[in-house]
Amino acid sequence: MLKDSFYSTTDELQLGEQLHNLVVELFPICRSITGNGVRETLAILKRLLPLEIHEVPSGTEVFDWLVPDEWNIRDAYLKNSDGQRVIDFQESNLHVLNYSLPFHATLPLKKLKEHLFTLPEQVDLIPYRTAYYQPNWGLCLSQNQLDALAEDDYEVCIDSSLKPGSLTYAELLIPGELKEEVLISCHICHPSLANDNLSGVAIAAHLAQFLQNQTLRYSYRFVFIPGTIGAITWLARNEATVANIKHGLVLAGLGDPGCLSYKRSRQGETEIDQSAAYVLRQQNDYTLVDFSPYGYDERQYCSPGFNLSVGRLSRTPHGTFPEYHTSADNLDFVQAEQLAKSMKACLDIFDILENNKYYLNAKPKGEPRLSKYDLYSDIGGLQVTAESQMAMLWVLNLADGQHNLLDIAQRSKLPFALLVLSVKTLLNHGLLKEVK
Amino acid sequence: MLKDSFYSTTDELQLGEQLHNLVVELFPICRSITGNGVRETLAILKRLLPLEIHEVPSGTEVFDWLVPDEWNIRDAYLKNSDGQRVIDFQESNLHVLNYSLPFHATLPLKKLKEHLFTLPEQVDLIPYRTAYYQPNWGLCLSQNQLDALAEDDYEVCIDSSLKPGSLTYAELLIPGELKEEVLISCHICHPSLANDNLSGVAIAAHLAQFLQNQTLRYSYRFVFIPGTIGAITWLARNEATVANIKHGLVLAGLGDPGCLSYKRSRQGETEIDQSAAYVLRQQNDYTLVDFSPYGYDERQYCSPGFNLSVGRLSRTPHGTFPEYHTSADNLDFVQAEQLAKSMKACLDIFDILENNKYYLNAKPKGEPRLSKYDLYSDIGGLQVTAESQMAMLWVLNLADGQHNLLDIAQRSKLPFALLVLSVKTLLNHGLLKEVK
Amino acid sequence: MLKDSFYSTTDELQLGEQLHNLVVELFPICRSITGNGVRETLAILKRLLPLEIHEVPSGTEVFDWLVPDEWNIRDAYLKNSDGQRVIDFQESNLHVLNYSLPFHATLPLKKLKEHLFTLPEQVDLIPYRTAYYQPNWGLCLSQNQLDALAEDDYEVCIDSSLKPGSLTYAELLIPGELKEEVLISCHICHPSLANDNLSGVAIAAHLAQFLQNQTLRYSYRFVFIPGTIGAITWLARNEATVANIKHGLVLAGLGDPGCLSYKRSRQGETEIDQSAAYVLRQQNDYTLVDFSPYGYDERQYCSPGFNLSVGRLSRTPHGTFPEYHTSADNLDFVQAEQLAKSMKACLDIFDILENNKYYLNAKPKGEPRLSKYDLYSDIGGLQVTAESQMAMLWVLNLADGQHNLLDIAQRSKLPFALLVLSVKTLLNHGLLKEVK
Repeated sequence: MLKDSFYSTTDELQLGEQLHNLVVELFPICRSITGNGVRETLAILKRLLPLEIHEVPSGTEVFDWLVPDEWNIRDAYLKNSDGQRVIDFQESNLHVLNYSLPFHATLPLKKLKEHLFTLPEQVDLIPYRTAYYQPNWGLCLSQNQLDALAEDDYEVCIDSSLKPGSLTYAELLIPGELKEEVLISCHICHPSLANDNLSGVAIAAHLAQFLQNQTLRYSYRFVFIPGTIGAITWLARNEATVANIKHGLVLAGLGDPGCLSYKRSRQGETEIDQSAAYVLRQQNDYTLVDFSPYGYDERQYCSPGFNLSVGRLSRTPHGTFPEYHTSADNLDFVQAEQLAKSMKACLDIFDILENNKYYLNAKPKGEPRLSKYDLYSDIGGLQVTAESQMAMLWVLNLADGQHNLLDIAQRSKLPFALLVLSVKTLLNHGLLKEVK
Repeated sequence: MLKDSFYSTTDELQLGEQLHNLVVELFPICRSITGNGVRETLAILKRLLPLEIHEVPSGTEVFDWLVPDEWNIRDAYLKNSDGQRVIDFQESNLHVLNYSLPFHATLPLKKLKEHLFTLPEQVDLIPYRTAYYQPNWGLCLSQNQLDALAEDDYEVCIDSSLKPGSLTYAELLIPGELKEEVLISCHICHPSLANDNLSGVAIAAHLAQFLQNQTLRYSYRFVFIPGTIGAITWLARNEATVANIKHGLVLAGLGDPGCLSYKRSRQGETEIDQSAAYVLRQQNDYTLVDFSPYGYDERQYCSPGFNLSVGRLSRTPHGTFPEYHTSADNLDFVQAEQLAKSMKACLDIFDILENNKYYLNAKPKGEPRLSKYDLYSDIGGLQVTAESQMAMLWVLNLADGQHNLLDIAQRSKLPFALLVLSVKTLLNHGLLKEVK
Repeated sequence: MLKDSFYSTTDELQLGEQLHNLVVELFPICRSITGNGVRETLAILKRLLPLEIHEVPSGTEVFDWLVPDEWNIRDAYLKNSDGQRVIDFQESNLHVLNYSLPFHATLPLKKLKEHLFTLPEQVDLIPYRTAYYQPNWGLCLSQNQLDALAEDDYEVCIDSSLKPGSLTYAELLIPGELKEEVLISCHICHPSLANDNLSGVAIAAHLAQFLQNQTLRYSYRFVFIPGTIGAITWLARNEATVANIKHGLVLAGLGDPGCLSYKRSRQGETEIDQSAAYVLRQQNDYTLVDFSPYGYDERQYCSPGFNLSVGRLSRTPHGTFPEYHTSADNLDFVQAEQLAKSMKACLDIFDILENNKYYLNAKPKGEPRLSKYDLYSDIGGLQVTAESQMAMLWVLNLADGQHNLLDIAQRSKLPFALLVLSVKTLLNHGLLKEVK
């Protein structure tokens, strides 16, 4: 099992620290759906992984969309008539409306206000706002900051550029025995937001790093892409091979204190849906949600023209925690322990996918005489039968080519890992055959 | 939507009054399964609607049945030896056993009692009793009236006739774009009973009156028929075209104070069943019941040789309220407001049937770029997305030719009417195609 | 109905006594999976039933198993140095490890202990232990007996033999109208254990005795076999005709004070599963359990190579009551009343199987005019309709060749027996045809 192999070299505490450290390193970068922020982010990940980096030129048609002009930002501020920076991009990159047009002028407060975005009900927090497809300029600030602005003429400077360039994303395929793939997708387009972006990125990167050295049944494809336009671009460029994707997970929002939550694929009852539900049901606390066409890139993978078997693993769902898309989604909000547990759940899910095969009982008429193979306890008549013996009986009974190992786990209520062991034993004794 | 169009000219108060007024007008007539009472009733309805009236001769074979002789009644009474009318048909037509043979004689009380029907547990009420298929004569009276009868010789007179004639029913087809029909059926065979009969008649009549002037997808067929033998007669005479009926509703008992109740068709999960259930689930209080072969004419439409997709809309189910089939089912028992709300529920059901189509997303790979069509809010990153935007995303996601609009409403938990609007918008922008 | 016919000659009290008496007679015999104990048991049953007795030689290959050597036991004891029998097989045949190798020696207590089996948590009880497939010798005793043994040299004597012979089982086929069979199987391999063995044997024997004289639709096959190896042997020898078995019941543990419990077949929703569930749901208290590959011979009948529609009827499930496989499973533990009620449940289940047919309404369009056949009450308009009339309406409505009588019972919530009566009436009047 992948999880056992993983934990043979790392413990949960170490893992949590490693994941959090990567979040810390990536946090300051001002990312967006295009531009140098994405490139810097991928350069850091490339230290860990042999990523293939793709640049797709602005103006490229991708289904109903065009790859937009590339946006870059150097600085942004608001200066009062005393020349003081009262709002400063250098303090938080959330202060700039993401994708803001360049702008430089001096304006009275009243005029300015049309371009200032706040959260009137969370007065201390800077909102995260974007203007990808509606050209605009603007600054984001806390309501308190806004309220503190005196009537004055202010110098606004947004030192950005928006011009033809490219959209950047990265990809890594870790080949397994099968051509069929497990897709792991995370978005890399949010600036200094820790949970909604970097938690998924850090976990995906560590998963990839680990899987690279494992013997795998499925091939695993990791994509690090800008949200929405990135997923659409990737789908458009890979339309011909998308059919190889048998299972997929979008990873997002995995470091907050909430319980794990799995959002089913549009199809709703696929193998990844069942596997993730099985893993979550082992947790003390969890949430399972049906698909809805809102959220992260599962929207694109599950659009009706693709309808891939892709679900999403998160903790507290986006939009339902007060820190969401604000300056409070910071490095404190994301916890090392939660990151490690999220990654562990991913490994548990992969372990099910890797082992969820169909078998045939080689001696299907009556029970095989297990004692003949030294697989049965010596003294009969006991009231209790060992779980391991029950596992063998269940596997033998349901090994009819119609039940996979997850079906057997669910029907027997025995741990999946125990059934995997039983299968190994029974295969060794020639009592079972794998259905190919 | 039909409902909006309806309420653009009438309010619920007006509607309730109109419905109740029609009930009041029809109430005094002594109806039965044949005879002049039915003809008078239909003559009144014909003022509102271009009804086609059918007369089917007594003795006509209709499946396992024969159309019975026609029954008419002029008067009936019980006179004591002082010549006083102690029971008088002129006071209530329930006093005569419906379909009673003519009879005139003077009898002592003891002999008489075999032909007197009462409700011993509801001492004030006159029961409604019939003797369609077992020739008999009789009078119905309250238990109190019976108890007050002194030992005496009584003159009984039942001035009725039972002889070859015909069975009368009415029909109206309102053509729509499709040849497929929605059947609305109500029984018109009960004498002065307000809820169990006239509530359904009044609503059916007003529905027909309104639908006549609407542009409709389905054709709507209204039948006003005597219960059981009427439905069987109608089915026998229309066997060849019954296959056009795609959905149907029996209307009965819709004016009492109870909550709405829908009885599913024998098939149990047809489109009318789902539509009615959806509409009822919007009510504060409602009941959904599975089909059983007892009740009103759904028994005939859902007999196994037809098995039509016909359900029944009622309020308190027949036989479960104390006023049922007694003189207490009178004009007070039927409330204008309840009648209006019942009719509104019918319109809601028709609105679903009319709009419950299948669509195809014209750009099914990834989401279309809604902002390109001005269908998306300007500033991204907000925590809350407008319901109308969610409706578009849901429709686009499930527009795969496999989900009709009611499926989408149930899965998205968004109002059906909002989805109809979204469909219109998306069709206008070429983002959706209707599946024909 | 079989049950009515049965109770026309016997009452429940008598039946309970007869069943308990048979248990009492069979109790003292020391049975095992082979040997004279089985033969003596079958000889007693042969007084009641024309059983066919089979002897299968040791060494016969039966699927993955070999028929074992035959085991017989004459005596066994433990004598202290005073020559007193401190453990004596003559007092309870549970004292010998079932299938113990012959052994005779004098050993110090310490050495001896490796071959003494107790129940440390039920200090008064002798455990039932077996050593069929792991050659061993041993004695079973209560913990109190063990604790009372002084340090001493003890003479152990196990006067058994284990050598080529045969495995014995019995079979009886009671032919019915159909070649399709109902299998009734019980194990006969436990020594002096009353519930776990003899309750099933006694009920099976009485069922067979009764069914012999009945007109039956199905053929009924009774097998009295040693557990596991017996069922496997029987399956191996009858592989070619096993396909005739349409329904089956394993009977075991039917005399204890617990409620009835039915364990579903591996298929889970077959006709026997539905029938048994229906019968149990009429009880005040009952348990329905899904199949698991542990228990009695349903393990073999439901192995994937056969996957027969065989469930198990028990009371408290094996292994979950403290008396299980101990000397407390004695004649007091098994109650006459419980035995009788268990047998009655079997008859109820057979009654469903015998009558659970498909019918066609001969007049499926509209309802037939029941009054024409004198099947309808005279005076219409009543609030309540007799159950018997409802039964006819339900049968007619669902007699479409798609619903069997059990489906109709479940949908109508009317008693199965009442529906059987309605079917008879409707067949008599030509209103129904049986689907063959």
